[in-house]
Amino acid sequence: MSKFPLPPGSTVGIIGGGQLGRMLALAAARLGFDTAVLDPDPDCTAGRVASKRFTAAYDDPEALKGLADACDVVTFEFENAPADAAESLLALGAEVAPPPIALAVAQDRFEEKTFLNGLGVETTPFEPITSARHIGPALDLLGAPALLKTRRQGYDGKGQTWVETHDDAEAAFRRIGRKPAILEARAEFRRELSIVAARARDGEVAAYPLGENFHEAGILRRTIAPAAASKDVQDHAEGIVRRVLTNLDYIGVMAVELFEMEGGRLLVNEIAPRVHNSGHWTLDGCEVDQFEQHVRAIAGWPLGPTEPIAPVEMVNLIGAEVEEWRKLAGDRSARLWLYGKGEARPGRKMGHVNRLRGKD
Amino acid sequence: MSKFPLPPGSTVGIIGGGQLGRMLALAAARLGFDTAVLDPDPDCTAGRVASKRFTAAYDDPEALKGLADACDVVTFEFENAPADAAESLLALGAEVAPPPIALAVAQDRFEEKTFLNGLGVETTPFEPITSARHIGPALDLLGAPALLKTRRQGYDGKGQTWVETHDDAEAAFRRIGRKPAILEARAEFRRELSIVAARARDGEVAAYPLGENFHEAGILRRTIAPAAASKDVQDHAEGIVRRVLTNLDYIGVMAVELFEMEGGRLLVNEIAPRVHNSGHWTLDGCEVDQFEQHVRAIAGWPLGPTEPIAPVEMVNLIGAEVEEWRKLAGDRSARLWLYGKGEARPGRKMGHVNRLRGKD
Repeated sequence: MSKFPLPPGSTVGIIGGGQLGRMLALAAARLGFDTAVLDPDPDCTAGRVASKRFTAAYDDPEALKGLADACDVVTFEFENAPADAAESLLALGAEVAPPPIALAVAQDRFEEKTFLNGLGVETTPFEPITSARHIGPALDLLGAPALLKTRRQGYDGKGQTWVETHDDAEAAFRRIGRKPAILEARAEFRRELSIVAARARDGEVAAYPLGENFHEAGILRRTIAPAAASKDVQDHAEGIVRRVLTNLDYIGVMAVELFEMEGGRLLVNEIAPRVHNSGHWTLDGCEVDQFEQHVRAIAGWPLGPTEPIAPVEMVNLIGAEVEEWRKLAGDRSARLWLYGKGEARPGRKMGHVNRLRGKD
Repeated sequence: MSKFPLPPGSTVGIIGGGQLGRMLALAAARLGFDTAVLDPDPDCTAGRVASKRFTAAYDDPEALKGLADACDVVTFEFENAPADAAESLLALGAEVAPPPIALAVAQDRFEEKTFLNGLGVETTPFEPITSARHIGPALDLLGAPALLKTRRQGYDGKGQTWVETHDDAEAAFRRIGRKPAILEARAEFRRELSIVAARARDGEVAAYPLGENFHEAGILRRTIAPAAASKDVQDHAEGIVRRVLTNLDYIGVMAVELFEMEGGRLLVNEIAPRVHNSGHWTLDGCEVDQFEQHVRAIAGWPLGPTEPIAPVEMVNLIGAEVEEWRKLAGDRSARLWLYGKGEARPGRKMGHVNRLRGKD
């Protein structure tokens, strides 16, 4: 007999103890689940709201054994967890969701784009780069300037650099640490959208409305949701995310970042096999937010509704901006989500503010 | 310089580890606070979402010292915590909110009603009872049947019994354990309402709209909010709760249970110096729910808005009803709050369901 749907009182394991893990743990608790968090930092922010904490490296065999024993299902708050960890958990008999293959695909930009193109999903044109001398020919194919990105480990604009000319090839490759990379054509996009969707254990898919994203210095600054978009564009985006979810036999929430081109064509920028910053608006904008939705999916519960209660503007609090908490606490329209992180280092996501719109 | 408003990263202490403590801890976490829970049960449900746990009796001196040291403010999830505990915390230099006097007043039905009447707030007529032989004369004054209630420790219909005749006096007094009591006249009320309100450290008061409550076997079964009530009735209720809050120099959330009589007159049934079951609808019906509101108040933050986003029906899941979780998980209109308690004993509150109304 299937252990799913998991009854309340079951334990949800989370690999990674940042703000996404924290908000997952809070959502799991609302549904009556216990939680266990694995993170190398004993003081990690998700651990401080979890029922159990494992303090160890993500691939520590003893900690993974402990997590497998303690948890009825294990999930990830980030896609750069060692794919080995997921495989070890499976070997230990743990239920793991989303499936490790989704992590493996999302961890490598080359694999990711190749997988997407294989499904007939359009991305920006790209070329694999394993040494500086590949850059010149790739630049000729793709046009200059083009974006050089490490295949692995990049996020929030890290591990990427623009290449303007052939002469810059050697220096650019050095700037990204001489790692295996891809060179990406510049997408002349009109705007950046994203779609957050979930797939349940029975194959049901539910998508939230598109959000429109505004980045600064490579970091998400702001999301407006639902984005002003035609039904065609929403349907197209839903079609893309459904194809990706179904082909990976995915369970849980996924975000797909999109470029909307002139004329409404959509290119996939990247997929995130997890809850996503551009879905934080759902915390105040929907009856069931992306975190509860993820917990429902991995626990084998039916998905919740994804229609918005109200349109929302989400603004990230980055670095020292969190020191505005006093002003924001007094702003009646600001729903505050603060992540309980210590030091407000530059570029660090410290919290976010949701504002319900159309009510003023 | 005042330590208030408390910055994110401060620690909120909670005495009592039940579902109210759990939902307070979740709300505190959203605002970036750490939490510490004191409860005699090492496996208490609030402790499983808290940053720190103290497992000890509520009046254990060592645990209270630990809590005072660990926390920037300490609050209560229930009014029957030993008033001594609150006093000990104050003596240890801790910030305690709401003030211990509010616990003392609410812990004793005789003190409570005497205090309310002293403010000009109407209650049902009552007489103090310290022995069975007081019951007959009190019954003559108040009319039969009348309700005999212990002065202390009663909740959810426990510690109370109806007295029909003089002949029943001795047996009734035995039924409530021969404890100091009051005899209360039967209130011929039209319906039961409650108002949940908060008072901030600067004296600001904010009230949620009235809820209409439906009890079964002495336990809250259902709340409809906002209650269908005229502005006069809402204003009257707000006036009552404001008077109580201000006179106690109260900080935090309080609930006032009311009887609405024919013609709209309001009698206070009882006050609860804490977040309250009849305010659970705010979790899905308001931008800032009663738990966040309480945390805001005790942390010295400004209060949040109390206007509803949507009308809500809240239904408690009592005892074995929680075994319906599978059906409720698939009910798209049911927002589920499960408390993570173990055994579903009869009469035990295991969770609740909020349904946003007027959307179908």
